[in-house]
Amino acid sequence: MSWPLASDSFVPAEEGLREALCALGNGYFVTRGCAAESRADGIHYPGTYLAGGYNRLETRLAGRTVENEDLVNLPNWLALSFRIDDGAWLCLNDVEILAYRQELDVERGLLSRDVCFRDAQTHTVRLREQRLVSMRHPHIGALQIELTAEDWRGTVEVRTALDGEVTNSGVARYRGLNGSHLLPLEARVSADEQMFLKVQTTQSELRVAQAARTKVRQNGELLISPRRFEQRPGYIAQYLTASLEQGDRITVEKIAAMYTSRDRGISECGVQARQAASSAGSFDELLACHQVAWNQLWLRFDTSLEFASRERDAQIAWILRLYVFHLLQTVSMHTEDLDAGVPARGWHGEAYRGHIFWDELFIFPLLNLRIPEITRSLLKYRCRRLSAARGAARAAGFRGAMFPWQSGSDGREESQQLHLNPRSGRWIADHSHLQRHVNAAIAYNLWQYLQATEDTEFLAYHGAEVILEIARFWASATTFNAELDRYEIKGVMGPDEYHEAYPGADEPGLNNNSYTNLMAVWVLDCASQVLQRLSEHRRRELCELLDLRSAELQRWRDIGAKMRLVFHADGILSQFEGYEDLREFDWAAYREEYGDIRRVDRILEAEGDTPNAYKLSKQADVLMLFYLFSAEELERLITGLGYRFDPHSIPRTIDYYAERTTHGSTLSRIVSSWVLARRDWQRSWTLFEQALKADLRDGGSGTTYEGIHLGAMAGVVDLVQRAYTGIELRDDALHMNPCLPDQLCRMKLRIRYRSHPLMLEISRARLKVSSENVHAQAITLHLPDGIHELRGGDSREFVLG
Amino acid sequence: MSWPLASDSFVPAEEGLREALCALGNGYFVTRGCAAESRADGIHYPGTYLAGGYNRLETRLAGRTVENEDLVNLPNWLALSFRIDDGAWLCLNDVEILAYRQELDVERGLLSRDVCFRDAQTHTVRLREQRLVSMRHPHIGALQIELTAEDWRGTVEVRTALDGEVTNSGVARYRGLNGSHLLPLEARVSADEQMFLKVQTTQSELRVAQAARTKVRQNGELLISPRRFEQRPGYIAQYLTASLEQGDRITVEKIAAMYTSRDRGISECGVQARQAASSAGSFDELLACHQVAWNQLWLRFDTSLEFASRERDAQIAWILRLYVFHLLQTVSMHTEDLDAGVPARGWHGEAYRGHIFWDELFIFPLLNLRIPEITRSLLKYRCRRLSAARGAARAAGFRGAMFPWQSGSDGREESQQLHLNPRSGRWIADHSHLQRHVNAAIAYNLWQYLQATEDTEFLAYHGAEVILEIARFWASATTFNAELDRYEIKGVMGPDEYHEAYPGADEPGLNNNSYTNLMAVWVLDCASQVLQRLSEHRRRELCELLDLRSAELQRWRDIGAKMRLVFHADGILSQFEGYEDLREFDWAAYREEYGDIRRVDRILEAEGDTPNAYKLSKQADVLMLFYLFSAEELERLITGLGYRFDPHSIPRTIDYYAERTTHGSTLSRIVSSWVLARRDWQRSWTLFEQALKADLRDGGSGTTYEGIHLGAMAGVVDLVQRAYTGIELRDDALHMNPCLPDQLCRMKLRIRYRSHPLMLEISRARLKVSSENVHAQAITLHLPDGIHELRGGDSREFVLG
Repeated sequence: MSWPLASDSFVPAEEGLREALCALGNGYFVTRGCAAESRADGIHYPGTYLAGGYNRLETRLAGRTVENEDLVNLPNWLALSFRIDDGAWLCLNDVEILAYRQELDVERGLLSRDVCFRDAQTHTVRLREQRLVSMRHPHIGALQIELTAEDWRGTVEVRTALDGEVTNSGVARYRGLNGSHLLPLEARVSADEQMFLKVQTTQSELRVAQAARTKVRQNGELLISPRRFEQRPGYIAQYLTASLEQGDRITVEKIAAMYTSRDRGISECGVQARQAASSAGSFDELLACHQVAWNQLWLRFDTSLEFASRERDAQIAWILRLYVFHLLQTVSMHTEDLDAGVPARGWHGEAYRGHIFWDELFIFPLLNLRIPEITRSLLKYRCRRLSAARGAARAAGFRGAMFPWQSGSDGREESQQLHLNPRSGRWIADHSHLQRHVNAAIAYNLWQYLQATEDTEFLAYHGAEVILEIARFWASATTFNAELDRYEIKGVMGPDEYHEAYPGADEPGLNNNSYTNLMAVWVLDCASQVLQRLSEHRRRELCELLDLRSAELQRWRDIGAKMRLVFHADGILSQFEGYEDLREFDWAAYREEYGDIRRVDRILEAEGDTPNAYKLSKQADVLMLFYLFSAEELERLITGLGYRFDPHSIPRTIDYYAERTTHGSTLSRIVSSWVLARRDWQRSWTLFEQALKADLRDGGSGTTYEGIHLGAMAGVVDLVQRAYTGIELRDDALHMNPCLPDQLCRMKLRIRYRSHPLMLEISRARLKVSSENVHAQAITLHLPDGIHELRGGDSREFVLG
Repeated sequence: MSWPLASDSFVPAEEGLREALCALGNGYFVTRGCAAESRADGIHYPGTYLAGGYNRLETRLAGRTVENEDLVNLPNWLALSFRIDDGAWLCLNDVEILAYRQELDVERGLLSRDVCFRDAQTHTVRLREQRLVSMRHPHIGALQIELTAEDWRGTVEVRTALDGEVTNSGVARYRGLNGSHLLPLEARVSADEQMFLKVQTTQSELRVAQAARTKVRQNGELLISPRRFEQRPGYIAQYLTASLEQGDRITVEKIAAMYTSRDRGISECGVQARQAASSAGSFDELLACHQVAWNQLWLRFDTSLEFASRERDAQIAWILRLYVFHLLQTVSMHTEDLDAGVPARGWHGEAYRGHIFWDELFIFPLLNLRIPEITRSLLKYRCRRLSAARGAARAAGFRGAMFPWQSGSDGREESQQLHLNPRSGRWIADHSHLQRHVNAAIAYNLWQYLQATEDTEFLAYHGAEVILEIARFWASATTFNAELDRYEIKGVMGPDEYHEAYPGADEPGLNNNSYTNLMAVWVLDCASQVLQRLSEHRRRELCELLDLRSAELQRWRDIGAKMRLVFHADGILSQFEGYEDLREFDWAAYREEYGDIRRVDRILEAEGDTPNAYKLSKQADVLMLFYLFSAEELERLITGLGYRFDPHSIPRTIDYYAERTTHGSTLSRIVSSWVLARRDWQRSWTLFEQALKADLRDGGSGTTYEGIHLGAMAGVVDLVQRAYTGIELRDDALHMNPCLPDQLCRMKLRIRYRSHPLMLEISRARLKVSSENVHAQAITLHLPDGIHELRGGDSREFVLG
């Protein structure tokens, strides 16, 4: 299960792989092949950064004040370098690389490199580096380097540091902003061999303490030599020197601990970091525990796939595991006790500054079926920001709770108001905060978690209030059109970011976006289901606290029965009111002229035109409905509004929008592949393969360097997990309707559903479901052939259609 | 339901009441009837202080370094005073009190006072004060004062402050320690009418931000007058002046907000406090929401009792509600998202410095049956400190996890090593950290929570690991006595703190304390039940993570079958090995000489003797077993060890120890009343009445001023809740066996059991159980007449024996 990122060559064959590596590796001389010690390592410390997290700066941008800095790179705790005979500190750019192999072993969570190089003084050096951030001990990172003097003798000086002089400078277009967010507090030697660093983020005042101990062994013997120190505010380094004979080997082991002032169960973070660094085991001991933890994660998250072709088998399995690896670097049981959300770009890069978007919608379904306790914690992150959402609704003239499109640390709206078109050099007004549909996603996520876990206590104490307040927001965002006897939602944006206004309109926003309107209907219906599901006692309490009376509930029902949907003349659901009147886009001409037209918005703006004028989408919008709901559920929702639902319109609708999408968002191909999975597996499979490689080859857009696309990564794994198995969680039953693509012969995965670890074994002909908890309450399985009950510990096999 | 603390007289009739008032009221000129603005108000901000919380100082005590300061008084946010015509600031000690009535309305959570006084200049002033700390908005406090110029005209100057110059000085014997724990950071005017203060605790570096706005109305009209400010580090005040005619009234409204750097869902605590103070409603609006929240709490927590005598009825109901009120001031849904434990003395006083003891054992049963979500959060406080407990076990030569007797903020042991005998003036070695039985209490609490809620996810992800590691600790603390073919636990203390060593022994600790040994057996048994209850998948994971193999489990079973218990010759369970050989104590002589002999330990030490030498107990020790376990369960445990269990020995055992107990702990009477409830209701009732009034009259010992006794308060409410109803949670059933004391005709209470809000109506002849959740899974009721199933929403009535 190892992932050979680059083998036996310094510059990897594929540019995409190198970019992926940058997102993965970082720290000590990794980034773009040159020494870049100052790069902080988001990946390395799952749970330390808080999504929508730590900082907020006032900076000048395009003449306006923006406050939008929520992600801060923490001090580099595994900084390490060396030099030979008082020469220059190692920089791989300045030496001749003889051999280079870097490997991310996702199975063991270990990044290792073997490098052989010759420097200007013709010293040949062999290096073996291994680094990990413990999945067992959430506060510990470790590094081990072996250095062999191949053909020389001399002194090697090792520099090991805690480096708080890092900046946020990973995203080129943010470099005009202030990238220095760390205030140095303390840098000192704290004990034998131990260094200590403490810094504070400038605005949010989060304190971060790091302690590290470094040991050097020469040919296996511990090296006892005097240590020189270098210290300045925000930086502390130790220097150790060894004299090597030809063929000698030194091993440098660095163990580091990090705590923040927001960690729990501690007194002061510095005390804790020093204790943890002192009492942590050796690299080998840490690696052993780390591996046990990763093994267990793989038993929970792995999906074993058997393809007709063995080669494809291995390749797809690789990529899926790589994506799960990245997901678990970002959120895991280590973040469960933190106030953290899921940042759209992981902690791997700085784009979007750690803000929380709607990507959860693509991430939680994977977590719900594997470790729902993580989802619970991420949902609570939203619940904690309910009062900020209430304030935002009030300020905008609505009722209830209006969660922001880009959520900052305290739940404030952080969407940019201007963005730069690099093609035209112009700053453009940005209205993406009008994507109110994020509120529907939050309600949907809460309900899906409940379906997966039956955690009614969480619903009663935390989730229900949020769902009810979101329902209230939708009701207040709705206006009644007496002429049509219909409710409408005006002035919003759907997921498709290429449409934010009517052509020529003064005001931004569109009316009756189908996705938004139908999701609002779903939320209002969900809210009444929530009320029904609570105990009578809790229902009374909540209605009293929220002053929720029967007249308001009646209005919700009325809206839920009379929301307007706009259809094209041929019965296709319109993306929004007026979409049908827009011009068709000349796809062929633009493709010919520009090649890659995924960011056709920038092309059009540079031409003085706007995508608002055309029938073209950045990403799935109407199609999201087919992604989130089965045909059955859609039928219920649409006929519930008094519209006719023609199942035959589904393929036409899918085709209509699929042809008009540029897939400018990484999420779009997943949705499109999903909705095509059962009717056109070949197109679906092509989209799946494209989606699969988005972050791997960076799809040519170069954005992976700024952070992975976590929604797309989790979404593609979930596509395998749910689209091919037909898993749906609704009506208190586990629905399954497997339909493997032609390439896939067999799959096997372990999911969780309501206290049952369930092993699913699926082939084209059979489905076997085995419960691994004899104590769990019986659950209901909805299969194509009917409804079945599965008791705790049961194993049942079903023949598929 | 109001509680008249003192009526129409400045010095309340009963000293006990005044003491209780000090613990309740505090803040602005309350303490001991004199102006004491610098007193911080722990009670006022549920959830702000963290139990075992915030600070740790190095101080010199008796020539040794102790580090034991975990409770810090926060700045006084409702500080307010006034003066007339540039006279002296009001001090009630210096004026003639004409009328005084103070009332704590526990139903509404409102403290109010009506005072009429005449000052040296013969101004007669009428004051009405109301203050609350919101149960709806966890960060908001509010104060309103009406002042009427009865017989004068002149100017009134109002001083409103945020006062960070408070100290910890509430406990006389700690005053030699450094009581200043707040470092001033910022004190300024932050907006129109708004003051802002920010401080930091000296060691733990917790930041606390407060913002407040004050308005003055004169005869209903908002007073717009220039404000003078006074500011120095750690203190900011505003001065407002009004000119009054005779009969004029001014109303001062102060709304304050407080956030700390450990709060969640925020950016920086100062920003948040200022926003919250700006956007909070008026006093009346805050009071209205506050009351809704308290109403709901009373619907959950109230126990309605009907006594033969109406008067007794009202009095007992008062006291029980007062105690529930105090419990909910300390822990509530407002603390649910904090890293807080339950401090033994609430936040009401400074004794024990906020450390966490075993008192949870008496508190959680009440919470489990009312809002178990609170218990979950308090248990998680323990789970977060598992690694500290592991470190402590390792350091002491044990395996597994050893939780401390007095737990400090990061889970370190904070038990004093010396204590002062005020009677002799000597510092005495203190071995109370040998009370290892706290570990059994933690495991017991986790299991009880599981029984109450069936929250198996919490067990799987958090609780199981703690129980297993505690079991491992007990196994490692056990030695095998080959001669007896029995396992033994040596060198510990039981709950009875009067015995900490054998008379004349060099080493502290006692062998084979029955309570400890039997609890260890229970824990080992519980651990195997935990393993069985987990899914196979999670069990494999945990056993791998903990390296728990079958040989170790086999050893646990072996210990669980062969633990040694020591009995007296007549079959009574011995408190510990050798207890029978101790001398009888001359109770009559000491009572005659000293009167109150509850702290006979101090008396004996001052005489050069020691309680170790006598058959006397500070508190229930063996009797704890009869408190925690029903006769049935005890029989299972004892016969499981191969000892004969004679049910007739129970009364004799109870009598034996009841006669030898001084009840030097407030918990002791509760346990004794409980174990006597079904065999000697008169003695039980007498003890109940004494326990009921412990904190109210302060039992003469004067310790209530240093903080309420939360375990005793919750325990006495739980005694009514469980001892009289015979509620037991075990074997996945709700056991009930009502047995009302003669005085009690009828009781009615709403409990929660596994998603069912259950209304219980109990009379001597009947028990009615009604479920208020139609969706809940059926539960099993164990009643004296047999086993019944209760479905969600069912209501059933049973005839009692």
